[in-house]
Amino acid sequence: MSSGKSPLELLKDRLGSIVSIESDDLYSVSYDGLKISFMPEAVIRPVDESTIGVVLKIANKFKIPVTTRGAGSSLTGSAAPIKGGWVLDLSLMNDIEIDEGTGICRAGAGAKIIDIQEAAEKKGLRYPPDPSSHKWSTIGGNIACNAGGLRCVKYGVTRDYVISLKGYLANGEAVSWGRDTRKFATGYNIRDLWIGSEGTLGVMTRASLRLIPQAEDRCLFIASFQSEPEALKNAYQILLAGITPSVLEFLDCLTVKGAENAMSDDFPFERGGKQAVLLVELDGPMLDVAQQKVQLTRFFDKNGIGFKFASEIEEMDALWNVRRKCSSAMFELGNAKLNEDVAVPLDKLEPLYLCIENLRKTSGLPIAVFGHVGDGNLHVNIMYDRGDDIHRENAKCAVQQLMEDVVSLNGAISGEHGVGLAKSSFMEIQFNKAEIDAMKAIKKALDPNGILNPGKWFDPFIPWEHTPEKVRLAWDHK
Amino acid sequence: MSSGKSPLELLKDRLGSIVSIESDDLYSVSYDGLKISFMPEAVIRPVDESTIGVVLKIANKFKIPVTTRGAGSSLTGSAAPIKGGWVLDLSLMNDIEIDEGTGICRAGAGAKIIDIQEAAEKKGLRYPPDPSSHKWSTIGGNIACNAGGLRCVKYGVTRDYVISLKGYLANGEAVSWGRDTRKFATGYNIRDLWIGSEGTLGVMTRASLRLIPQAEDRCLFIASFQSEPEALKNAYQILLAGITPSVLEFLDCLTVKGAENAMSDDFPFERGGKQAVLLVELDGPMLDVAQQKVQLTRFFDKNGIGFKFASEIEEMDALWNVRRKCSSAMFELGNAKLNEDVAVPLDKLEPLYLCIENLRKTSGLPIAVFGHVGDGNLHVNIMYDRGDDIHRENAKCAVQQLMEDVVSLNGAISGEHGVGLAKSSFMEIQFNKAEIDAMKAIKKALDPNGILNPGKWFDPFIPWEHTPEKVRLAWDHK
Repeated sequence: MSSGKSPLELLKDRLGSIVSIESDDLYSVSYDGLKISFMPEAVIRPVDESTIGVVLKIANKFKIPVTTRGAGSSLTGSAAPIKGGWVLDLSLMNDIEIDEGTGICRAGAGAKIIDIQEAAEKKGLRYPPDPSSHKWSTIGGNIACNAGGLRCVKYGVTRDYVISLKGYLANGEAVSWGRDTRKFATGYNIRDLWIGSEGTLGVMTRASLRLIPQAEDRCLFIASFQSEPEALKNAYQILLAGITPSVLEFLDCLTVKGAENAMSDDFPFERGGKQAVLLVELDGPMLDVAQQKVQLTRFFDKNGIGFKFASEIEEMDALWNVRRKCSSAMFELGNAKLNEDVAVPLDKLEPLYLCIENLRKTSGLPIAVFGHVGDGNLHVNIMYDRGDDIHRENAKCAVQQLMEDVVSLNGAISGEHGVGLAKSSFMEIQFNKAEIDAMKAIKKALDPNGILNPGKWFDPFIPWEHTPEKVRLAWDHK
Repeated sequence: MSSGKSPLELLKDRLGSIVSIESDDLYSVSYDGLKISFMPEAVIRPVDESTIGVVLKIANKFKIPVTTRGAGSSLTGSAAPIKGGWVLDLSLMNDIEIDEGTGICRAGAGAKIIDIQEAAEKKGLRYPPDPSSHKWSTIGGNIACNAGGLRCVKYGVTRDYVISLKGYLANGEAVSWGRDTRKFATGYNIRDLWIGSEGTLGVMTRASLRLIPQAEDRCLFIASFQSEPEALKNAYQILLAGITPSVLEFLDCLTVKGAENAMSDDFPFERGGKQAVLLVELDGPMLDVAQQKVQLTRFFDKNGIGFKFASEIEEMDALWNVRRKCSSAMFELGNAKLNEDVAVPLDKLEPLYLCIENLRKTSGLPIAVFGHVGDGNLHVNIMYDRGDDIHRENAKCAVQQLMEDVVSLNGAISGEHGVGLAKSSFMEIQFNKAEIDAMKAIKKALDPNGILNPGKWFDPFIPWEHTPEKVRLAWDHK
């Protein structure tokens, strides 16, 4: 490389107009769904893979931080360039190819989940992972945080659909992990190490994804219970009875109350009551759905205080509304939200809920809970007033205690959102020193200069001590 | 630690009678299914986990090689202590606990697969991975090589059933990877990095395994075809038709001929013909099996030259005999076997077979092929006379060419057996330099002193230049 030039000049010489230093461009990639902004020095929007090798070779030589992003819908700050440097925005690398024969989708990292789902559907196939961000989020981002969603209870998470990955090491060398075979037992499984590593170990540029046949039939139940422990116990009983729902969602009384306030005629239960709710979808072959529908109807006849059933698209859509209103309804309870997504073993759901009840008492804050009970993965929303010092302090203590409770129940501090910045200060609750040291050693091995998404996971960061940007994102509620 | 004592003396001081240096004991752990012997200095048979921490702390301090093993049924030499040192035999750590509620089996690394399967069955549950070594092999060994088996086409491989792992790093520190939750998105996924790493990155002591409901019903088809490409094409067509067999096995004409010679009245086809065979098992809920049975009957009515069907246990067992005779029948063709287990994408099975046809011509050796066609994973058995120099040279060239062909078809040099010693000289066909360097960096990060199962994968080794031990192992055929 020519001497005297800055790394950024070298980059622009090599790549031209795909490198931007315009402040609007830089601002737009300075934050993600956590909305805490850190300005980068440049943003690069590659349209072909080899560009990424060029970027990384220069960055690695000059130790420039490189933060890779797609849509930026992460809720954890994992896509925010906290150390500045360069942002690699892969959203233009969004090609999608469906191989009907082998049932494989090959997609660029920037391909949106909804586009992958629609391309698969056109060929009679299905890509099941379904995070609530699916209309905006990219497969690169979904793989980076091993995204979950509504249907994991039956279909699993993103990891379960990734067959192989292509990309670049921190040093700019091209690599492939896994082959488009159904099995391999050859070499270290760096594919699964990259999945969920939030862009800290390499830059993923392409993925081969496993598709499955479409569901023939689908129907939806919504059932109410007198208390949260009742609803949680029944959710577990549904699974123990051998029913395999495609969705099994829980809403606690506070969440249901919020949905009730946000809904008019279409609230499916009697108004003014106090109830926890389970939303249960069945899907699959016609015969299976019919059989399980009978089983579930009998179950809800015996258990709970009432249920509704729908099998027509519009009716199902109306019932889903209760779940859709959850997140926005929260903001009636406080102007700021700590949205945690803890996971516990299935037999620890009731103990977890008792811990949360206790947190409500000790913190004095409203805590609304809903989420993927079939996975033991609950969204715990600690609501508070950002302007109130006591509120902030109570929220901080509550979230710390929640994480300690979750780990003591043999759970995980994040079930699907990942760590990023938001949960970095809880890593040491989850992992012992030997485990953290092993992770740091792996990071050092694959990224010796520490250029890839630096500042995440291992540097404790307190997100609620930062003022979020006043921006409205496409996926914001309301 | 007291000065002046050798590492072995220190070990015996700490652990007493579980350390053996008796030559019979040492010989018994000096080889695995590859039967190439390397004598260790000591063998340790722990009964509790903390012992392993003690062993590793001493070994790591004095840079003593430590090779971990279970039953030693690996076919690749992965359990052979090629660098001497100490062998950790975990077969006494074989406790099994089934949690019916969460559907989780917790087992010590030394628990045998058959014992896990039987314990699960007693509770109405099922552990699907089913390698042919399942009567002897341990869960530790199965996880170490990410074992496959007969039913992966529907149920996946060992990796798909591992929820969490406990064990020790090379430095003797205790670690847990994964939680017994259905989801986690927290930290690097070292669980999946350990799986398939053949004991080179840590010592796994316990696993939590996912169990599934038992199949209600089961039935078996065996169908014959005029040629191998016909059979392979039809295997793929079965999957494309949406049929989800639990077993989909292929036997080429040479293999079927061998089975015919080894069988008497019970050979299910007309004698003296030339035919390739598919063995197809259906299992699952009664209704599903009934429906797919109709579909498959129609399929075989139209395709192939004949088929048999069985649904009674004894009848099914008789049909399975054809498959069971495969491995032993090989030895009619030569006194030595290079047993490769390559995997290719499903749409590359016919091209792979054409490559093998070509290898038969160029090598002049009999090559019998059978295996898990539903996974694109074929066992390619290159038979030769060990005493014949030309044979040996031709076998060596043939296996090299096979691996190059497989990789050019975007396949993997091993689908389920792993690399160990046997495939180490082919790693550079499968992986580029950047990929190998990344793997070596990970090895160095987690095992800086290189004590864990040294000499595997990255040091090319030519197994057929070594004379195998004349031992009969429990799982040997005949």
